[in-house]
Amino acid sequence: MMNEAIAYAKANADRFVDELKALLRIPSISTTPERAGDVRKAAEFVAEGLIAAGMENVRLIETPGHPLVYGDWMHVPGKPTVLCYGHYDVQPPDPLEEWKSPPFEPEVRDGNIYARGAVDDKGQMWMHVKALESALADGGKLPINIRVIVEGEEEIGGHGIEQFVREHPEVLQADAVLVSDTEMFAPDLPTLCVGLRGMIYTEIEARGAMTDLHSGMYGGAAPNPFVALAQVIAKLKDENGHIAIPGFYDAVQPPSADEMKAWASLPFDEEHYRKTEVGSTELTGEAGYSVIERTWVRPTMDVHGMPGGFTGAGAKTVIPAKATAKVSFRLVPDMTPEATFALYKDYVASICPKGVTLEVRLIHSGEAVVVSTDNDYIRAASAAMKDVFGKETVFVRGGASIPIVGEFERGLKCPVVLMGFGLPDDNLHAPNEKFHLANFHRGIESILRFFEKVSE
Amino acid sequence: MMNEAIAYAKANADRFVDELKALLRIPSISTTPERAGDVRKAAEFVAEGLIAAGMENVRLIETPGHPLVYGDWMHVPGKPTVLCYGHYDVQPPDPLEEWKSPPFEPEVRDGNIYARGAVDDKGQMWMHVKALESALADGGKLPINIRVIVEGEEEIGGHGIEQFVREHPEVLQADAVLVSDTEMFAPDLPTLCVGLRGMIYTEIEARGAMTDLHSGMYGGAAPNPFVALAQVIAKLKDENGHIAIPGFYDAVQPPSADEMKAWASLPFDEEHYRKTEVGSTELTGEAGYSVIERTWVRPTMDVHGMPGGFTGAGAKTVIPAKATAKVSFRLVPDMTPEATFALYKDYVASICPKGVTLEVRLIHSGEAVVVSTDNDYIRAASAAMKDVFGKETVFVRGGASIPIVGEFERGLKCPVVLMGFGLPDDNLHAPNEKFHLANFHRGIESILRFFEKVSE
Repeated sequence: MMNEAIAYAKANADRFVDELKALLRIPSISTTPERAGDVRKAAEFVAEGLIAAGMENVRLIETPGHPLVYGDWMHVPGKPTVLCYGHYDVQPPDPLEEWKSPPFEPEVRDGNIYARGAVDDKGQMWMHVKALESALADGGKLPINIRVIVEGEEEIGGHGIEQFVREHPEVLQADAVLVSDTEMFAPDLPTLCVGLRGMIYTEIEARGAMTDLHSGMYGGAAPNPFVALAQVIAKLKDENGHIAIPGFYDAVQPPSADEMKAWASLPFDEEHYRKTEVGSTELTGEAGYSVIERTWVRPTMDVHGMPGGFTGAGAKTVIPAKATAKVSFRLVPDMTPEATFALYKDYVASICPKGVTLEVRLIHSGEAVVVSTDNDYIRAASAAMKDVFGKETVFVRGGASIPIVGEFERGLKCPVVLMGFGLPDDNLHAPNEKFHLANFHRGIESILRFFEKVSE
Repeated sequence: MMNEAIAYAKANADRFVDELKALLRIPSISTTPERAGDVRKAAEFVAEGLIAAGMENVRLIETPGHPLVYGDWMHVPGKPTVLCYGHYDVQPPDPLEEWKSPPFEPEVRDGNIYARGAVDDKGQMWMHVKALESALADGGKLPINIRVIVEGEEEIGGHGIEQFVREHPEVLQADAVLVSDTEMFAPDLPTLCVGLRGMIYTEIEARGAMTDLHSGMYGGAAPNPFVALAQVIAKLKDENGHIAIPGFYDAVQPPSADEMKAWASLPFDEEHYRKTEVGSTELTGEAGYSVIERTWVRPTMDVHGMPGGFTGAGAKTVIPAKATAKVSFRLVPDMTPEATFALYKDYVASICPKGVTLEVRLIHSGEAVVVSTDNDYIRAASAAMKDVFGKETVFVRGGASIPIVGEFERGLKCPVVLMGFGLPDDNLHAPNEKFHLANFHRGIESILRFFEKVSE
């Protein structure tokens, strides 16, 4: 049966990519209020895809934000149930001028499909849908029971799905969750992600004068909110990349000695990484830790933008009445978003510069998570990837966050399998995001083999 | 003759305001490349106004940037020649949402006309044009020779007029220059400005990674250009508001003991100023100096905007490849823009954070200037304002810059009279810029009386 499904996927590979292109054309940017209609359109597209695949009970589930898409196929009593999770929302595409082809006009170049959402996560989510279609085609059956849940708020904190899991865990009841929203450690190296950082995404708004002022007339007497924010940001991190918030590191749990040992044998060269992935003159970060530690198991702080004042070409001599900094922290086990935000907010208040008032707002948050590797689902996923890629599967952690993963572990009380097919140079959240099409097809095969191994 | 001119101005006051409104409707924002057509339209409007006023040889003078408008009336041999200077370009209007009425739809409320450019400088420049018209109406004559030069690049450094003064000083040859682009110290207090700060307006561009990166995946290893800029800005000024660039204050000349003494008797209350003009919780600036000193005779640093990264609503977890800070310094005698920029650039290079490259660009600059008060033109202006306002005229300095004033003093070798009619709450460069209409009319009368006193 599995061979037939794999043959079907191969025979229909081009059509699968054409459908993915149609999905990528929908600018479902969840953070942009004006895009709410497009976000819904993407949800409907996914629902239609699930129906066409042969899934049952397919429906949109409304949330206070963007809808969830649900479907199931529950016809193998006695066999496990796997919940397939993905998301159909995407990050904003800016800066637009850096894209080689427009972000919502997918283009295939050199075996990669380029578009916002190509790998994160429309392409990887579509692998799930197409794996299900391949198994169910021509009167076929799935070897296990499957539920599918696809959300539209992953990029903005996943509130809708979190609330749904808390209020209706029975609807998503499963023995394991399969998530394809991570990356492989290196091309051709099958990888399972077993830990994700959490995050808090915040804004600090600084207010000085009651209105914008002329810097000639008031410069020297009026507080400057940008200077104040710069002073605050400069005090968040010391010169060694250490975050200066008192108590910030208190809850941090280091990785196990086994993990550290396994990571030491991963194919990783810092200089190659600096040159090919980052491209800066030097790498930065916390002194005393390797790049792998700094990006997987150490908390960090970043500033994403500083709206306010004059940002056009040329000069405007304004002391703006207010300015804002978008500041986020990545969290690691066992830091909690609540406690971290409280420490941060108190610290910012304690270093507030003269003449300004500061408001610190939490935009969204997610918990760090480490998944257990000692279960049949991880073993099945590991073996499935090994079959397809012909190499031993490695276990890594990821630096990014998938807000709902922690909630799945706690709320559904079942293991989560993070089987992702992205590549390190796929430009997630950046211009020229892409998905390697070979991995799209290998991903579908890996998912089918995973289902089969779970049923055994 | 002067009485007839003043009567004409009073009889035509409403029409003068209607014409000013038409000029204010033209969004002649010199820093915005897309507005170049509107900037030229404003120049043409001014030229037509000069022709209608009875001025001769009216023409646009092309520059590498926006055009100059010239006109003259040279029919009183043996009498002095005064060059009337103004500018028809304006600052950008953002933030638009803070305007009570749209910036380019002038509206009169409570005796004030609200629009971008109302006081800076369309309204004050139009006083010159209307004073000339009032004197020349009905076959009238001017008591002295007049040249008029109006520029369209005052808000962006005044390069065109500076080059013109250097290359063709004979065209603008005069015995004195009259500038109405400053403000009165308090309502009803006739004021001559006798010193202006200079400035350098710069951008610091920080570049880290070669492309935007996902802060989850790269946070902890990739340099963050906003954090780097914050560190740089925080090191430009110390906690006491003292600028930390080595050598920055070396050339600063303090004001004379006479000036300090005169300023001590000006009606100024810091707490009233804080509450009614600035509106911040506290005033800021350099420790050890009064507000008047800090805004008139001490150099300052301000940040006007920090373009780059994500500035939309909500969250985008990007480590931007680059970010920019718009940073300006106000200069005082005897600092030079060239030497100050060099010190600043060297200092920024010396504090460049790890992992980023910094480029420091000079956008525009202007010299600080102190004008001589010991000449007949200042005495004539002082007496003219006293006649109109019924109070002794006070001498102040201004914190803002009019780039060409220094060049007039040096290039035309003649005294400059800064006779302005703005008020402290006119919101220059800010939302809800206004001009008090009573001052528009009193300004026309003051200018007519100034011409008469100069002829005596």
